[in-house]
Amino acid sequence: MPQQLLNKHRATLDGALEAIRTRGYWSAYNEMPSPKTYGETAADDGKAAFAAHLGQAFELDQPGSTGWHGGERSPYGIALNVSYPVCDPEVLIAAGRKAMDGWQKAGVDGRTGVCLEILDRLNKQSFEIAHAVMMTTGQGWMMAFQAGAPHAQDRGLEAVAYAYREQSFVPTETVWDKPQGKNPPLVMKKHFEIVGQGVGVVVGCGTFPTWNTYPGLFAALATGNAVIVKPHSNAILPAAITVRTIRAVLAENGIDPNLVTLCVASERSATQKLVTHPAVKSVDFTGGNAFGQWLVDNARQARVYAELAGVNNIVIDSTDAYKAMLRNLAFTLSLYSGQMCTTSQAIFVPAAGIDTEDGHKSYDEVCADLAKAVAGFLSKPEVALAVLGAVQSADTLQRIKDADSGALGHVVLASCKLDNPEFPAAEVRTPVLLACDAADEAAYMEERFGPISFIVKVADTPAAIALSERIVSTHGALTAGIYSTRPEIIDAMTAATMRAKVALSINLTGGVFVNQSAAYSDYHGTGGNPAANASYADAAFVANRFVVVQRRYHI
Amino acid sequence: MPQQLLNKHRATLDGALEAIRTRGYWSAYNEMPSPKTYGETAADDGKAAFAAHLGQAFELDQPGSTGWHGGERSPYGIALNVSYPVCDPEVLIAAGRKAMDGWQKAGVDGRTGVCLEILDRLNKQSFEIAHAVMMTTGQGWMMAFQAGAPHAQDRGLEAVAYAYREQSFVPTETVWDKPQGKNPPLVMKKHFEIVGQGVGVVVGCGTFPTWNTYPGLFAALATGNAVIVKPHSNAILPAAITVRTIRAVLAENGIDPNLVTLCVASERSATQKLVTHPAVKSVDFTGGNAFGQWLVDNARQARVYAELAGVNNIVIDSTDAYKAMLRNLAFTLSLYSGQMCTTSQAIFVPAAGIDTEDGHKSYDEVCADLAKAVAGFLSKPEVALAVLGAVQSADTLQRIKDADSGALGHVVLASCKLDNPEFPAAEVRTPVLLACDAADEAAYMEERFGPISFIVKVADTPAAIALSERIVSTHGALTAGIYSTRPEIIDAMTAATMRAKVALSINLTGGVFVNQSAAYSDYHGTGGNPAANASYADAAFVANRFVVVQRRYHI
Repeated sequence: MPQQLLNKHRATLDGALEAIRTRGYWSAYNEMPSPKTYGETAADDGKAAFAAHLGQAFELDQPGSTGWHGGERSPYGIALNVSYPVCDPEVLIAAGRKAMDGWQKAGVDGRTGVCLEILDRLNKQSFEIAHAVMMTTGQGWMMAFQAGAPHAQDRGLEAVAYAYREQSFVPTETVWDKPQGKNPPLVMKKHFEIVGQGVGVVVGCGTFPTWNTYPGLFAALATGNAVIVKPHSNAILPAAITVRTIRAVLAENGIDPNLVTLCVASERSATQKLVTHPAVKSVDFTGGNAFGQWLVDNARQARVYAELAGVNNIVIDSTDAYKAMLRNLAFTLSLYSGQMCTTSQAIFVPAAGIDTEDGHKSYDEVCADLAKAVAGFLSKPEVALAVLGAVQSADTLQRIKDADSGALGHVVLASCKLDNPEFPAAEVRTPVLLACDAADEAAYMEERFGPISFIVKVADTPAAIALSERIVSTHGALTAGIYSTRPEIIDAMTAATMRAKVALSINLTGGVFVNQSAAYSDYHGTGGNPAANASYADAAFVANRFVVVQRRYHI
Repeated sequence: MPQQLLNKHRATLDGALEAIRTRGYWSAYNEMPSPKTYGETAADDGKAAFAAHLGQAFELDQPGSTGWHGGERSPYGIALNVSYPVCDPEVLIAAGRKAMDGWQKAGVDGRTGVCLEILDRLNKQSFEIAHAVMMTTGQGWMMAFQAGAPHAQDRGLEAVAYAYREQSFVPTETVWDKPQGKNPPLVMKKHFEIVGQGVGVVVGCGTFPTWNTYPGLFAALATGNAVIVKPHSNAILPAAITVRTIRAVLAENGIDPNLVTLCVASERSATQKLVTHPAVKSVDFTGGNAFGQWLVDNARQARVYAELAGVNNIVIDSTDAYKAMLRNLAFTLSLYSGQMCTTSQAIFVPAAGIDTEDGHKSYDEVCADLAKAVAGFLSKPEVALAVLGAVQSADTLQRIKDADSGALGHVVLASCKLDNPEFPAAEVRTPVLLACDAADEAAYMEERFGPISFIVKVADTPAAIALSERIVSTHGALTAGIYSTRPEIIDAMTAATMRAKVALSINLTGGVFVNQSAAYSDYHGTGGNPAANASYADAAFVANRFVVVQRRYHI
């Protein structure tokens, strides 16, 4: 059966393998919620499927169940009231280990086929999952659909493709035939078996419960491991739907469904016990530095793939498309109220201002114009509500309030609370823009997650590039940007990003934004600065998740 | 220049790439010290080159030199008296980082070409290096030549091949062209640059100063990193010769030679400071558990690739080639006086004995016959001296003495001190064989490095297999073996080794030994049990040593 699934989805796998080889544009899953792709009734069916979860106990039929837990609070203010089975982590780990044997025997092709079938089934649930993502994270609808469903599925498929490539490279058997001069050769048959390292735990985050979970989930699964998904306490539903579908596909194909389970815990100590269990060999984590560092310090029995906080930044030296640049930045700063790990937080502008096609602009003018661009972009309520979504956490609301108070810098653009007629209780906020001096490091040189950005006045462009490099090297970043009309400045920034190891976007003025990362083409994180010790996805993301056990004998 | 070197050595690289793909027999470097391969005068020239180092200061022209240090003691008892430059680790790290920029710019092809040229030059020095290995480690001549030179070079080339394969998979650039329905597509040019993670430190061991050093050294180097080689205090010369040759090849090809340096330290604290330096991003280590665990606990800024202690073991269930089995085991236990990380330490024999083609043999008979086989194999002094070599350390001599006292088990075969007429001061010892019960875990379930093995009496074969699995899982092992004529027993042992993640040799009775690991074909270590967290070599051994830094812009 699993092998037949590989045949069924062979074109998808081949497409992904070619895409990771060329890194050109490709996608397996339509990012537009089109009825042609997803079916005429898909939108309504998906919404209904989501609504059917509300107020219900979400059955998963997992072992070790001890009770029910829920408590997700929607940033849109709607009542969710879903409860999930709480299962003893020891039981889940033991069940996962037991299931690994059959999964190993399915082989590379079998595992890959099952993973492709899972992704296909998740794709068919895109609307249901998108609503679950939207309502638990506060993302706007279109982003919830794209990032929460097809883009997340693409990131999962990307990991499956890397896993397939690396595993396929290992031959299943060989004949080793060593000449011995005039004597008969030494001849041995050798077999090579791919064995998963153990149980993988994937710890999800509250803002992108599928996009940041699927890479680690599918990387660990495709390479022969059991996986326990530990979702963020406020974004359980998208993970629960995902796990239920995975378990269904596994069972249909004769694989013990306990290979993949959901671990919902009401206490942090349960998570800590889970990730430090000797049988847990990998932990994928997206989230804050405190728990990330705790993981690195304590889960030493496992390989930790961590995406943590950073200070993303942009250097503005000059531009020949001033308005387009401002529009591009305004969108970046507004999208999902800046609650992306890739949103720019610090924008460096020379004290003497910048040259543009529209003449020289002083530092103050750049500040004012960017503020105007953001305010203008968000002036239409329907645009603003669609782009901003809602604020995911009380902590972020507090950070916006603190920034608005002027304590961190001069307020160039204050945050506004917007009303969402469809969701009256939604917490909607526009971005706050602050102006400060490069010397005010305490203000801008720490991640302030949410729609809070600093326009930092630096001595000149070389100082800005040096500052960017230092920030990335010491505090980390997933994204960096440069605007310049001067090739030597772009070269200098390029060299700085190579030293600091961060992806660079150059002169973005159109429909691509510094905070966007496309599967198969853009590396999400380099794994070389403090913001992340791994990248989505590459060989390093999969190669350590399995080992090869050989046996040899004379023939 | 570097690109030309790739062309020059293209056939070697292609051979290695094909070998790691098929894992059949292949070698780039002749393991026989043949005049046809190495030149009519190579043997004499190499010996003279080695002799010319004795009593001399070994010049390396490294920065930060503060004095000289030596003190190697030859297990063969000859005077070495070589001194090496002591350099400030901070200076070496800074110089290495500085050199990385030019090395990065050489690109994958350039770096690979230079690495291939280095290996070719090291191959031409095989006799000189073999003498250095022999005289610092106590290996017999043939082993010192093979393992110290061509086999070590093959392991280095294997790492270069994996590094090339993984790096070559990353395109240098692409055009990303995303359709936008009726609107013009979004088109971006993207560049992908491979950047080494940072400075790699390779900590050598006292028994295999090249074989265990070259994999990490070449993996780190080929992927764009600077490398500091920190040799074992008693096996500096082979590393120093290697580093000098590397520096020469680098300089000839316009690369800053400080990319690779030797760090000789008289105090352990200097090594500890080196490996915990923030700029050090990888540490390759072969050695004991104490320092290995210290590294994992303390060098958390780096990826640690560690090969540590283990308890290699063999289960004997039955055989149809009793004498050949005993001969095979006798060679394994004798080779280099058991001072290999792959030597079998525990041999499990059912209490009721084993079936053979020569009738049933009781446990006591197996003990006596194995003792006889070892004694018989070593009865010719010229064979014994060539195979045993000399004992590398005073600690191992003490362990032999302790084992001989009977404190750890009944002495089935006592160790003898042999005279070596050519090297009167050589410390030569034959193996000690002990018999004990499975319950005597404290005796055999801890690595006792050296020619000390236990014939452990277990209830029956299933119990032996279960014990083997438990030992590998909890104490680690690089090798496991099984002798059986029953397919179901071989299957059970195979399944156990897959769970415990250790390579299995089945019914070895000819010219291949459980302690031998062939480059390109055998994985040395699986990376999945406590004896080693990495394998020589595979994708995981190279993939994390570099990152990809991208930049993108509209076209």
